[in-house]
Amino acid sequence: MRILAKNLKAAAERGEKDVFICGWIHRIRELGAVSFIVLRDRSGLVQLVLDKKCEFTLESVIMAHGEAALNEKAPGGAELRVTQLDCLSRAAPDLPFQVNGDVTRTGLESILDQRALSLRNPAVSAIFRVQATIIEAFSACLRENDFTEIKTSKLVSGGTEGGTNLFAVEYFDRKVYLAQSPQCYKQMLVASGLERVFEVAPAYRAEKHDTPRHLNEYVSLDLEMGFIESEKELIELEKEILARIFEEVARKNAADLELWAKSGASVPKAEAVFNAPVISYEQALGIANGESAKKNGARIFDINPDAERYVCEWALRETGVDLAFVNEFPRRHRPFYTYPLDSVRTMSFDALFRGIEITSGGRRQHDYAAQLEVLPHFGIKPESMEDYLSIFKYGCPPHGGFAIGLERLTAKILGLSNVKEASLFPRDRRRVTP
Amino acid sequence: MRILAKNLKAAAERGEKDVFICGWIHRIRELGAVSFIVLRDRSGLVQLVLDKKCEFTLESVIMAHGEAALNEKAPGGAELRVTQLDCLSRAAPDLPFQVNGDVTRTGLESILDQRALSLRNPAVSAIFRVQATIIEAFSACLRENDFTEIKTSKLVSGGTEGGTNLFAVEYFDRKVYLAQSPQCYKQMLVASGLERVFEVAPAYRAEKHDTPRHLNEYVSLDLEMGFIESEKELIELEKEILARIFEEVARKNAADLELWAKSGASVPKAEAVFNAPVISYEQALGIANGESAKKNGARIFDINPDAERYVCEWALRETGVDLAFVNEFPRRHRPFYTYPLDSVRTMSFDALFRGIEITSGGRRQHDYAAQLEVLPHFGIKPESMEDYLSIFKYGCPPHGGFAIGLERLTAKILGLSNVKEASLFPRDRRRVTP
Repeated sequence: MRILAKNLKAAAERGEKDVFICGWIHRIRELGAVSFIVLRDRSGLVQLVLDKKCEFTLESVIMAHGEAALNEKAPGGAELRVTQLDCLSRAAPDLPFQVNGDVTRTGLESILDQRALSLRNPAVSAIFRVQATIIEAFSACLRENDFTEIKTSKLVSGGTEGGTNLFAVEYFDRKVYLAQSPQCYKQMLVASGLERVFEVAPAYRAEKHDTPRHLNEYVSLDLEMGFIESEKELIELEKEILARIFEEVARKNAADLELWAKSGASVPKAEAVFNAPVISYEQALGIANGESAKKNGARIFDINPDAERYVCEWALRETGVDLAFVNEFPRRHRPFYTYPLDSVRTMSFDALFRGIEITSGGRRQHDYAAQLEVLPHFGIKPESMEDYLSIFKYGCPPHGGFAIGLERLTAKILGLSNVKEASLFPRDRRRVTP
Repeated sequence: MRILAKNLKAAAERGEKDVFICGWIHRIRELGAVSFIVLRDRSGLVQLVLDKKCEFTLESVIMAHGEAALNEKAPGGAELRVTQLDCLSRAAPDLPFQVNGDVTRTGLESILDQRALSLRNPAVSAIFRVQATIIEAFSACLRENDFTEIKTSKLVSGGTEGGTNLFAVEYFDRKVYLAQSPQCYKQMLVASGLERVFEVAPAYRAEKHDTPRHLNEYVSLDLEMGFIESEKELIELEKEILARIFEEVARKNAADLELWAKSGASVPKAEAVFNAPVISYEQALGIANGESAKKNGARIFDINPDAERYVCEWALRETGVDLAFVNEFPRRHRPFYTYPLDSVRTMSFDALFRGIEITSGGRRQHDYAAQLEVLPHFGIKPESMEDYLSIFKYGCPPHGGFAIGLERLTAKILGLSNVKEASLFPRDRRRVTP
């Protein structure tokens, strides 16, 4: 029976004399006639002791039989004293990426160019173990709240944001576009009677800028729910979701967080999340300008990236958590489907976490006549939105929703400086491989 | 506090005199001075009794206050005796689709053209409640088996099946393609040390044919795992996954299965799944020809759709479950990355369920030299596959995987005659809306 690295100590405590371990050669250290091999498997690293020189290259996949032995000095407190060593797959010696190095000292381009190898670095794979926990916790929390998971088409005939920043797809003899969000579909499904739906799926933005906070393809954690009165219920739900995600990451990914400790990897306590401030757009502007003035910064006229950073710094200082919800955005800053609070403000919100917007959402306009009236103000012809408008024409409850950007949340939990590090195979203007 | 339809009986048993219910007007029946309204919410249908004519149209969204009362004759055993009725969203009276009708008598084109309304039919939404359970059970089963969920790019620079049937995307100043499967990426992640990965994501095939079994965009339930010896371990894993899916659907979606009872909706017992036959390609051909001969059918030279149906009929007769695993496919029928069993056969398999292939998979070639040697026989230039080949060059364990087509499995559980019915927003050669 194969033993995983993390279980070797238990095997040693049981006094197992003949077990085997499989994995990659992470590191080799020769000490006189003895070789110490650090082996890597899906559970972590473990030390093998071999009474001769190791004839295999780094990253070769091996199977090692031997005795499980306790050793306080070995990582994990145990080692395998090897009696037989077989190679399952020999690695070429010209490794173009140092798998066992410190990736925080490696350039981003090199990490992404050599994805097949950089993903082998434990700190790099840690990013995606954390990400898997985020998806699991998001989904579990919503299922417990009676949400139904949906999978909607990513090929659409138009955009949800006025037709800009779309990637065109050659679809047989016509053109369609990659969906920027499942907005229209999730609203349709709320109105279908499912009432509460969520989706985890790719979303596309053909934006040309190349910044540490943008991806042209990202994973959107989307939800939409019926029978709400305002965005405040959505903010409460997002607090519940984030608290759940942070709890699960703390519980399941402690070792992964440890690998990014130097970058400040950590998760807020659930209690702090529930106490995170909810402030209006106007209040947020005031706070941002106050913080900016202290640092002799420029005047801020909008919740731009600088303002997002300032508001989070303020929230951390005032409430102990760098998470804040900003609501009541002015109509001019939000899409046409946002529900008005009054003639100027809307029932919308952003969630800001550690200096960046991770969520945008709000209550939606569900009234057919109001929807028809508002479209021309946004330069949209109602005739071009017939499928969308039919959602509201035939009975649609008050509703709203939001989306969390998976890569941004992952990056902020781990303290990664570029959101691309939190995408397995990021796409930007220049990068389409691997 | 809002009460859901399914909880009204419990409220009546508690003697609740003032509750309210929200939902859509599914049906109205006037009986003298009394109106019986069937209201639909996310939990099901419930009867409201109103002591006057109902002034609202079908599909309007209402909020009804009143007394919860037991009534054996009402669906669910209870009804709401309405004291106040408010309309939250009035439906236009020109409904272009009969939401409360029998969808099995409605044409597929009408159901898909009127998706915003057809999704409101309880039998139609049942399809997607079942689908959500399938995704949940698939994911849960794999997480318990130590698999990590991944999200890979859907924009790739080439195909995994020789470059045919690809949709091109205009990506800034170049062309990329929509991924046909996450094949290359999931192999890379096995080799990264994650060892066991799964993904639930869209996949694309630019096939021109329009059949009841094909979609141009479908949801692929994908997995890949390291350290296996043959496809037999994958078949065992798929049995475990299918048994889990069927158990969960039976437990959570009994009412949804009931809505499709006339179409034969049902799930096999877990025990039957574990006993499903595993036969070789040669055996399957023999069985198919035997069945065909009995019906004076044509000679069968390949596991084509007829053969898939015959093998399932045989499996049902012989073992009580119309599920069969066919392995050892000839090399000429499988992609270049399939692991050989001998010079003719491969360590590959298909799963056939109720007459259709729902899974294709197998062990993969993990040896770099063997991979290089085989590529030219498939007309592929090794230079064009550098990223892919680097997976194997630097240490890759023996591994394999498979994918389950979500819509096909859903359709077969419910007895739907066309896989498009099991896609929320299906895409085919002509259909790109809604």
